Amino acid sequence: MRLLVIGGVAAGLSAATRARRVDPSLEIVVLEKGADISYGACGLPYYLEGRVRRAGQLIVYTAEYFRQERDIAVRTGARVVSISHPRREVVLDGGEHTHYDRLVIATGARPRTADFEGATLPHVFTLHTLRDAERLKAYLRDQQPQRALVIGAGYIGLETADALRRNGLAVTVVEQSPHVLGRADAELTKAVRERLERFRVELQLNTRISDVSGRELVILATGLRPNVEIAAEAGVEVGRTGAIRVDEHMQTNLPGVYAAGDCAEALHLVTGRPAYIPLGTTANKMGRVAGANAAGRRERFGGVVGTAILNIFGMGVAFSGLAVDQAQREGFSPVSARITAHSRAGYFGGKPITVELVADAGTHRLLGGSVWGENGVEGRINVIATALHNRMRVEDLEQLDLAYAPPFSTVWDPVLIAAQQLSNKQRR
Amino acid sequence: MRLLVIGGVAAGLSAATRARRVDPSLEIVVLEKGADISYGACGLPYYLEGRVRRAGQLIVYTAEYFRQERDIAVRTGARVVSISHPRREVVLDGGEHTHYDRLVIATGARPRTADFEGATLPHVFTLHTLRDAERLKAYLRDQQPQRALVIGAGYIGLETADALRRNGLAVTVVEQSPHVLGRADAELTKAVRERLERFRVELQLNTRISDVSGRELVILATGLRPNVEIAAEAGVEVGRTGAIRVDEHMQTNLPGVYAAGDCAEALHLVTGRPAYIPLGTTANKMGRVAGANAAGRRERFGGVVGTAILNIFGMGVAFSGLAVDQAQREGFSPVSARITAHSRAGYFGGKPITVELVADAGTHRLLGGSVWGENGVEGRINVIATALHNRMRVEDLEQLDLAYAPPFSTVWDPVLIAAQQLSNKQRR
Repeated sequence: MRLLVIGGVAAGLSAATRARRVDPSLEIVVLEKGADISYGACGLPYYLEGRVRRAGQLIVYTAEYFRQERDIAVRTGARVVSISHPRREVVLDGGEHTHYDRLVIATGARPRTADFEGATLPHVFTLHTLRDAERLKAYLRDQQPQRALVIGAGYIGLETADALRRNGLAVTVVEQSPHVLGRADAELTKAVRERLERFRVELQLNTRISDVSGRELVILATGLRPNVEIAAEAGVEVGRTGAIRVDEHMQTNLPGVYAAGDCAEALHLVTGRPAYIPLGTTANKMGRVAGANAAGRRERFGGVVGTAILNIFGMGVAFSGLAVDQAQREGFSPVSARITAHSRAGYFGGKPITVELVADAGTHRLLGGSVWGENGVEGRINVIATALHNRMRVEDLEQLDLAYAPPFSTVWDPVLIAAQQLSNKQRR
Repeated sequence: MRLLVIGGVAAGLSAATRARRVDPSLEIVVLEKGADISYGACGLPYYLEGRVRRAGQLIVYTAEYFRQERDIAVRTGARVVSISHPRREVVLDGGEHTHYDRLVIATGARPRTADFEGATLPHVFTLHTLRDAERLKAYLRDQQPQRALVIGAGYIGLETADALRRNGLAVTVVEQSPHVLGRADAELTKAVRERLERFRVELQLNTRISDVSGRELVILATGLRPNVEIAAEAGVEVGRTGAIRVDEHMQTNLPGVYAAGDCAEALHLVTGRPAYIPLGTTANKMGRVAGANAAGRRERFGGVVGTAILNIFGMGVAFSGLAVDQAQREGFSPVSARITAHSRAGYFGGKPITVELVADAGTHRLLGGSVWGENGVEGRINVIATALHNRMRVEDLEQLDLAYAPPFSTVWDPVLIAAQQLSNKQRR
């Protein structure tokens, strides 16, 4: 029995590793089109910044490690150009045909660059792969640009702006929508703008740039597109989001063919509908389930709630679930409350922390939340994420037995204060 | 309509405040036997340490504030000696009788000191009230003791040991049980012992000391007893834990009489039985519900899951729910896994963090967990606490969509790694 995995980063290697644990006798081959495998793409901005010294530090495991320790063959530079499911084989770009019994498609995503005039010019970069980061790093060193234009105020754009600014560049972030981080939340946008401006990064919203020629340095960070083409050509169904449709077992419409990671949809547990939210955390979880099932198990991936976090010049910004406008579009009647409290006792370095909660007015079900501040953000968003997984109501959230001692929190945790406020609104 | 509240710290003042919001016309009187109200008792160790400069900094609101801003009369030095429920009145120690229509008993708790020979000697202290802390602080200043003996390795004992050590004293902690923090967990005890010893605090387990005379300085920190006597004499029912029995509305067996805070039981959501876990967080939540209901609402307090956290020389130690031995005693078939991972990326100051999860082997329901490490502890224990509130199963916990970026976590959060380990054990 031969398992073929297309893609050797998060989802693909999680799938291969899990499949090996489930079935020690399986033949497992991973085909990676690039030169590197198993790297932590989320660390790329910190390599660019200089906090991570060598790109190699971001590589978790080598191909050699997989071969020796896990009996998994990993081939780099192996680009799959087509899948022939009736023959159970894939074709590599050199013409080689290779057989599979089970297939995991973990082809990932690529930056959206097609809309840009000059996207392939040497001063224009994306920050998606280890090679992208190395190429950009070399450009900074060799060309010493003084100014950078970052297109897109999503998390990659903002993290890259932070990294470039810390390298001394004058940075402007332009974003075509009226808000940052893809969340129509004026206060969140205001908080991010203030932080950027405090560190002298300019933010231009409602600004569309299509021609990127004639600049010193341009970063394209306008989001990701799932790599679905070879799968789609082979008859794998693609969902409305544009990513591969999978069931809760990570199986595609083709028997024995699974998909996981940035090329695939995931069920959004708040909306109950498939979503496309490409993140490393989700990719790993999907990969594990795909690998287990490709090796004969029957496990399920529950879904996501849309949790994300990033650091902007020392301020954590996080959200989970739906913003008010998203909730409205999904047919809920959202009511929200936002409070600013302290992350912990002032004498333990507590800082202001802002927590917003969104709930459905009818059912009181929590629908989402956002958190920002200089510390304590990750813990609070994770409580909200866990509450969303469990469809908690605000009045139950309000009574959570959260940990308190002055070095860690306040006697009423900021999440509980926000829940109280929201409860008060609902009682009226 | 007159609401009388006995006790002016966490639960009592939460009750009074909430009652005022619910019913602006209610007459509200708070009787506090001590001289201080509304202080954060959890901050006392940090006042002792010196991080909090003045005891007054721990006072959140004054009696004057309550009178002016909330129209609540707060009387200090007003000790209630008896309650006559048939007459709806309480008697103060000066002989004064005062009427109530509704009564909230928030009489708190007191340190267990009765077993000790010499407990009232001038070198023997507890750390329960603001006055205790001030008296101890004055003793340190005036007597300059070189050595301290702390009796009891619960959180108050350990936090006090930390504070005294930072003041330069040689500190020994003695504990009569074989473990610390009331949790029969050998690894937790080992981690705490190592931390204490690294900072040259001696820990003697299985050691009973009953005579505390003839020492330089002794701190009695052997736990709390609920102040139930005047309530019990008035016919208020006391539960098996020794604290006042309340229903989910915080009502006692007497109509119109509520209890909240350190004098009362709370439903433990994991065991389904009443527990006595006196903490400021719970006191405030109970107080709010008692106050709302005393003012005419019909709200419920869901219960607790037994979450606690403390800092020992820069190491956070936290737990929630049941330890393995407690789970066994409650009739579960506990299975547990403990992992050590990194709190976040190493290049963002990530430190080792240990997470233990306990689940029921039959149902896979999460029963408890513990976490310790130098950072990231509070966020992880709160995810566990939220999962316990929702009776999550380990296989669902494993797939939580928790936040990840290198400054905050690792791509597999330590809680998820522990859940995976526990799932693997359950699959076998």
